[in-house]
Parts: sequence; structure tokens; C-alpha cells
Amino acid sequence: MSKLWIGHGFDQAEFDQILRHAQGMRIVRPATQQVSNLVASARDPQLADCEIAYGQPHVDDVIESDSLRWVGLSSAGYTRFDRSDVRAMARLRGLRITSASGVYAEPCAQHALAMMLAQGRQLAEASRAQIVDQSWNYLPLRQASRVLNGSSRVLLVGYGSIARRLAELLVPFGASVLAFRRSVRGDENVPTLSIDLLNEHLPDADHVVNILPASPETIRFFDSSRLERFRPDAVFYNIGRGDTVDQEALRVALERDRLGAAWLDVTTPEPLPADHPLWRTPRCHITPHTAGGFRGERRRQLDHFLDNLRRYLHKEPLEDLVIS
Amino acid sequence: MSKLWIGHGFDQAEFDQILRHAQGMRIVRPATQQVSNLVASARDPQLADCEIAYGQPHVDDVIESDSLRWVGLSSAGYTRFDRSDVRAMARLRGLRITSASGVYAEPCAQHALAMMLAQGRQLAEASRAQIVDQSWNYLPLRQASRVLNGSSRVLLVGYGSIARRLAELLVPFGASVLAFRRSVRGDENVPTLSIDLLNEHLPDADHVVNILPASPETIRFFDSSRLERFRPDAVFYNIGRGDTVDQEALRVALERDRLGAAWLDVTTPEPLPADHPLWRTPRCHITPHTAGGFRGERRRQLDHFLDNLRRYLHKEPLEDLVIS
Repeated sequence: MSKLWIGHGFDQAEFDQILRHAQGMRIVRPATQQVSNLVASARDPQLADCEIAYGQPHVDDVIESDSLRWVGLSSAGYTRFDRSDVRAMARLRGLRITSASGVYAEPCAQHALAMMLAQGRQLAEASRAQIVDQSWNYLPLRQASRVLNGSSRVLLVGYGSIARRLAELLVPFGASVLAFRRSVRGDENVPTLSIDLLNEHLPDADHVVNILPASPETIRFFDSSRLERFRPDAVFYNIGRGDTVDQEALRVALERDRLGAAWLDVTTPEPLPADHPLWRTPRCHITPHTAGGFRGERRRQLDHFLDNLRRYLHKEPLEDLVIS
Repeated sequence: MSKLWIGHGFDQAEFDQILRHAQGMRIVRPATQQVSNLVASARDPQLADCEIAYGQPHVDDVIESDSLRWVGLSSAGYTRFDRSDVRAMARLRGLRITSASGVYAEPCAQHALAMMLAQGRQLAEASRAQIVDQSWNYLPLRQASRVLNGSSRVLLVGYGSIARRLAELLVPFGASVLAFRRSVRGDENVPTLSIDLLNEHLPDADHVVNILPASPETIRFFDSSRLERFRPDAVFYNIGRGDTVDQEALRVALERDRLGAAWLDVTTPEPLPADHPLWRTPRCHITPHTAGGFRGERRRQLDHFLDNLRRYLHKEPLEDLVIS
């Protein structure tokens, strides 16, 4: 009987529902189930003879298992698996790896737009005034306010399902949106260029939205030399991974007024310690890796998995395939 | 020679530009020019023989002037003129009154959407944590986060150019949007009902956006009896006028958890004194009447006036006509 490993922290009713869809597969569960999508499960010998794994299995277990045919990751990111040896092994053994980016594209894109509009409407400054001294900063805040419109230049750095959705949300504003990715495919919904060309475009940008995944090539991608190309009133957003930014260079750029503002949903490390200087850096706004959260997240995640399970069992193409 | 009264605080270069467009009209200016759109000019006998007035002329001057044919208000609101005696006089004398709502629809609509998304993504709570104790509230904020989507029910209370634009910005979210206004015209861009039917729809709403102008009929429109109809997790936004809300009833609804949150850009009075309880009411988020502000506001206002001046001189229909 084939086995389905579930490391994700579903509850009993959810497991029952999976069982009903699993066409007689046996479900195996690790001793400790995952609460967070951000951390890998501990190694689990049970994976050795499973056909499917869902959650955040340990990458070494996946590499060593001859029987795995599909690994469904419960996260939008797949950094731990984005390695040439994993890709080679997957090709060799016919293993497919999917992400849950279909679950997270919507909240993440809305989070990015929320940050862009909050910046334009000076909502964080208004919050600060409300908390700190209840002052009615009419003129300063009005003068610092902006609209997002046809003359706003927005760069999306990293193009996947989040960027695609963000581009859709930006349509009514008429902003000029340009995306950058490693390999341009031609099916993007906005003009898209190779990421090698980003440096030429940075000096024109009003908004730079970093949605890069973490990988050896993207570590500290936004370093001091790239940040120096920004206009001093440009705004930088990070809803990808904290590792892709040189945070000390970012802090210095903000301190020295060489950058208009930064909005970070991801940092290094996470949680960001209370005494980390970024918390108190001027015009640096931090949300605690909440871009993917939303009411109904568990339910959507289960539905996304069940839909892919049905596709797997019916030999249909899987959604959000990232490695195959 | 006909006269053009300008009470708005344009600078000399801007006056020169107006002169070049004024086809030989003489410009007269009050002793003190207006800085704020929110306050009426002092009475000015010069208005008695002017053909056009631009700015915030005193309503009694407008009523008493036989010569005025067009009053261009520099604000989106026109509360001071929204009176039956002014309407009757305007009809009788062929006087037209325009607002500057074309200037303010875009920033105000973006402000409203910024508030809606900031609520969904818990940006004010993240700001508070960043300022108060630098805590990484991952789980609580994720669980409180929401997406705006097809199951979100949004009510726009008051339908004018701001609501029209907000409805456009909401399109990509697929939210269910319903508008309410005094007189339904049939040319609205979302399903629109008579405001008399609002009470029936309040219990279903996730987001209630108040864009009502101030007038004798709208004073304390959102009183305790209306607020009691809201769902306890509904969110109330006010980007119209503070007077349209019973603030004490709003405060009580928030204190007693009968309302999810409130986002207010307008209050009574303005500025809101530092010791006013609304500043410290739970889940009450205040911006200091900044919804209309944006870089380029002065320029846009001048262009809007010059465009209407050209229309007036060429006997074309005026933009943003509110009374005629």
C-alpha cells in the first residue's frame, strides 16, 4: 500500500478529509508536526518508503528516498530545495516538487500594495503621531503624501505568482510597471527584463518591490552598490526573503537620507531581536513576516493540497510545480 | 471690464498664468488669501461686482452679488453652499458652482483603499509593535490578517467622484461593492441604491466607507442606532466629514467590541485635541484630514481651475458642477 507522509499540522477533521481523498493510501505522520512553514521538519526515517510527502520534509530525507514521486511544500518559498543536486535527483527519479504559492500569492500581493499605499498616504507616520503625542500633523503629512499614478515607476524584482498578482492589482492606478527575473519566459503580464538589466533601471524607480527567493545567487542581492543606485526618494519593499538584502547597507542608506523609505516583511534573522537597529531606523517599517497570513489560510492550504492530490492521483499536471 | 475674484493662495507665477488665460478679465484679490480649503474667506465687498470667484468665498457675499455667474470652489466639499436658498438663488440668477473634486478624487480614493488594505494587513498594529516594544507578533498578526476578495462586502455610503474612483480601484479584488446615495442616477459604476435602504444592508457589510458630505440631513448620520447594525468585525472608514458621525457612539462601539475597527480621516473638531478620547480608543486609527493631499496638489488645482476657466469663457459645460 502506498504511503502519504503529512508533516503539516492539520487537525483530525482535516486528516479525515485527506484520507477520504487518498484512494486507499496510508497516511504516516512524523512524531512532531510542523507549526511553522518556515522551518524544516526533523529527519524522519518513515519518508524512506513514502510516495508523497506534504509539509516541510527534510531535504536529506527527500534526496535519500527512492520512493517519493511528489513533494508538496506547504510554503510559497522552496529555498531549501532550490539546489542543483535536488533538481538533478528529481529529473533522474521523476520526482515533482510543488509549492503552496497559489495559497499565498493573493495575501502577499495585497500586503505589498498595502505597503505601497500606506507609504503614499503616510499611514505609518499618522500611526506614530497617534501613539506618541496625538498630534494633528495636517500640513507635514499632506505635503509628504503621494498618489500612485501614471508617472509612478514600479519595479518588481523577482517574477512569480506574487508579482503577477501585484501587477494585476496595480492596473487601475496606471503605474508604469516593469518586472525583472532570472529567465524571461514571455508569458509575464507586464514587460519583463532579465535581472541583469536591473541596475540600469534602478535610478528611475519610485518603488522597488523585492520578491526574490533566497538562493546562493540572491544572497545580499540588494547590497550597498545596488542601493546607491536608488533615487533618494525611492521606496524599497521586501516581501521575499531577508537574506536577499544587506541590512546594514539598507540601514545606512536610510540613516543618510539616500533612500526614501523601506517596508520590510522579512528580515534576517527572524524574529528580529528587539534590540536590532532596523526597528529604530528612520523610515524603516517592519511587519513580522505576515504578508502570507489571512483568515482561511489553513482551509485554503488544505484545499490546495487536496486539489493537487486529486491531480496527482488522476495523473493531471500539478499546480505550482517548482521542480520536476 | 469683468472681474475675476481669486481668494485661493496662488503665488505670483500662478497669478500670471491665470491672467494669460483670463482673456482681459481683471483679477481682484482679497486682503488675506486662503491657506486652507477648509475655512471660508472673510467677507469681501469686492465680490459685489465680480463675474467669477475662485477659492472659498463667503456664502453671504455670493448670495448678495448680482454679477457672479460662476463660483469655483477650491475644495472637494461644498457644504457651505449646499443649502436650498443658495440653490434657488443660483437657478434664478444663472449662477453655477463647481467643486475641485476632480483634483481630490484620486488621492481620497487611494487613501480609502490604503486604509482598507492596512486594516487587512494589520499595518497599524505592526507600527504600534515597532514603536512600543519592537515585538515580532508573527502569529497574532497573521491570524488577524485578511484578504480583500470576492467574499468581501464593501458599502460605499455617498456616491460621487471619490466613490466612483474607489470602485475602479477595487475591481481587481473582485469584492462585492454596493453604493448608496440620495438620488440614484443610473450612471454609477457599481450597483447603487437609495440611501434609505442602507440600514438593511449594514448587517452584511465587512467594510463601510463613509463619503457623505456634511449637510443638515447627514449630521450624525452614523449614530448609535446605525452603528448597532454593524457586524462586530465590520470596519468603518470616514473620509467624508466628521460631523456625519456620532463620535461618542463610535467610541462606545469600539470600546465594547461591537465594531472591528474604525479608520477616520475626518473628525469633529479638527484638529482633534490631543486629549480627545478617540486618539486612544482601541482599534481607532486616525489620519489628520490628509486624504486629499499629494505632491502636485497646487499644480493640479491650478490646472483644474484653468481648464474650467477655458470652458467658462468658451461657454462649454463646466467640470465638477455641483450647483446650477
